[in-house]
Amino acid sequence: MDSTKSKCVLLTGGAGYVGSHTIIPLIESGYEVVVLDNLSNACKGNEGQNPVPISQVEKLVGKPVTFYNVDLLDYDSLSKVFDKHNFCCVIHFAGLKAVGESCIIPLTYYRVNVSGSINLFQVMKEHNVKKLVFSSSSTVYGEPQFLPITESHPVGQNLLNGYAKSKYYIEGIIQDLCNSDKEWFVIILRYFNPVGAHPSGTLGEDPTGIPNNLMPYVAQVAVGNRPCINVFGNDYNTIDGTGVRDYLHIMDLAEGHVSALKKLQNADENGAIAINLGTGNGYSVIQVIDMFSQVSGQKVKYDIVDRRSGDCASSYCDASFAKSYLGWEAKRTLKEMCEDTWRWQSSYPQGFLTKK
Amino acid sequence: MDSTKSKCVLLTGGAGYVGSHTIIPLIESGYEVVVLDNLSNACKGNEGQNPVPISQVEKLVGKPVTFYNVDLLDYDSLSKVFDKHNFCCVIHFAGLKAVGESCIIPLTYYRVNVSGSINLFQVMKEHNVKKLVFSSSSTVYGEPQFLPITESHPVGQNLLNGYAKSKYYIEGIIQDLCNSDKEWFVIILRYFNPVGAHPSGTLGEDPTGIPNNLMPYVAQVAVGNRPCINVFGNDYNTIDGTGVRDYLHIMDLAEGHVSALKKLQNADENGAIAINLGTGNGYSVIQVIDMFSQVSGQKVKYDIVDRRSGDCASSYCDASFAKSYLGWEAKRTLKEMCEDTWRWQSSYPQGFLTKK
Repeated sequence: MDSTKSKCVLLTGGAGYVGSHTIIPLIESGYEVVVLDNLSNACKGNEGQNPVPISQVEKLVGKPVTFYNVDLLDYDSLSKVFDKHNFCCVIHFAGLKAVGESCIIPLTYYRVNVSGSINLFQVMKEHNVKKLVFSSSSTVYGEPQFLPITESHPVGQNLLNGYAKSKYYIEGIIQDLCNSDKEWFVIILRYFNPVGAHPSGTLGEDPTGIPNNLMPYVAQVAVGNRPCINVFGNDYNTIDGTGVRDYLHIMDLAEGHVSALKKLQNADENGAIAINLGTGNGYSVIQVIDMFSQVSGQKVKYDIVDRRSGDCASSYCDASFAKSYLGWEAKRTLKEMCEDTWRWQSSYPQGFLTKK
Repeated sequence: MDSTKSKCVLLTGGAGYVGSHTIIPLIESGYEVVVLDNLSNACKGNEGQNPVPISQVEKLVGKPVTFYNVDLLDYDSLSKVFDKHNFCCVIHFAGLKAVGESCIIPLTYYRVNVSGSINLFQVMKEHNVKKLVFSSSSTVYGEPQFLPITESHPVGQNLLNGYAKSKYYIEGIIQDLCNSDKEWFVIILRYFNPVGAHPSGTLGEDPTGIPNNLMPYVAQVAVGNRPCINVFGNDYNTIDGTGVRDYLHIMDLAEGHVSALKKLQNADENGAIAINLGTGNGYSVIQVIDMFSQVSGQKVKYDIVDRRSGDCASSYCDASFAKSYLGWEAKRTLKEMCEDTWRWQSSYPQGFLTKK
């Protein structure tokens, strides 16, 4: 099989938040998408049906999406998926992602993220699929030593949790893999803070249990699921004392993956290249809460509490390399991030399983 | 089962060079030893018999050693070994260790070393065995920033090969594991350069193919298996221009593991603690060759060739922490390292399978 002519892409973890949203611009750009997910953190469908986020995507794009319920740790099943399809590339979203949880059950994080990735890369190699987009994270930078964070900022220093370390280790493994075999071409995307939802309001982030991140928590307060949000510290050296982060609309992030994929297919390059995906702008916790209150028309109650260990004052990226190298930049504003989150949250206040 | 009263120790990779030698002082100190090895780099025995290094050890200690041919990546088989025995501790030697090879087949190195360790730790946790000695390496320090290298020397910076990185990653995973569960107590031993053989001459290092390390190569030249050894650079800033390393007699190293095990059993501590195992003295390549020529009575021919990328001028440890914390220090001289290597090499010029 000649993978250079294929437009079939495998998305590991494709039923998750970032994965499911990315299917849409991929299909709109003419790619055929195959999704693989173990559904450990995604909404299952009824017996015999695709998981709910995938069904929602199918309605939005008007096409069926091939789905496999396969775990990356299951080498043989993974290999069979590669036997069935002629993938041009893999986008590797699969992984556990809750920073706090990774400190409680680190072995599970390393097993799923690191051992799972090693299995995936081995199966790719055996099937001669050597183009990869990898979902990394701005957490590999640790506490910022300078701002904005460029791709040459040191990585791997004083990482405080297993999540960040697992991403850093996988980046290191990818680097060695590319050094050992010049046929590999890998784009490592270091996400800043993905938020928002598809503008239809039918697809969004559906966290299990208590949300780990600001925007879904704010949305749940606005919709009345939770009474109040804790703000961890208001004495940072920032515009209003609360922590500043680089929030990125999920559809911008999704489109960033399409740009990366096109680069993998069209550029005659090899090796591993890391790219920040963010807007380059920082917003404080209070700015996000205020904007969300404004667009939702709901008063979002918050309490100022103690700083949380491991948090820094500000983190935002230099997004210029993504623009020059991929021709991609974020287009959507904080207002759109809040509006789209609110449309999703108010349409599906209990997530995908909301009774309609 | 009360693991605190057990004196049964599991040695992963126990048929390898360091593992097999360590069995001897363990048994002499009253431990019961169970060996697990996948024999990927050890000399197999005849059908139904233990691997040859284990048989040799059994002759030396006059006792049988329980052996399992199990791969750490085989979770179920590994778990069954833990079901059968009441281990007090595990000494985790298993792993691939050829620096050069790790640059050629990095995925295999990460799979065996990192995924294998994650499996082991998970099985240990499930069986409530939370005391571990881990075979790490001085390579985690990268190029020395100061000498002698103390345990507080930075680790993980600019590591140039998958072997070193795999050891560094496993150390990081152990650290998170110990942070997440205060019942774990792990001693990480950072070996400098283990050489030599058991003084009986019946047990030693038996490298497959071309030896990766200096001493076995020198021994093979002395015994006539190879014509000449390449010395990589003689223009370093050292006593004679050749690279200086901290060589450690394998029996000293073996005894270091017994000291670590006693500490794990007797000290009421937890967490992960890293300890250098070396002599604290450095010898140059030429000094080693000269000493080997002297004790063997054989002229060891060498050629000076270009420096090898990734090599540094000098590396030797500060061995004082091992002495204060474990009560261990290396006792054997470079002369004994060469003598014992020569006794083994001249008795077994083709390794364990030498026809007698």
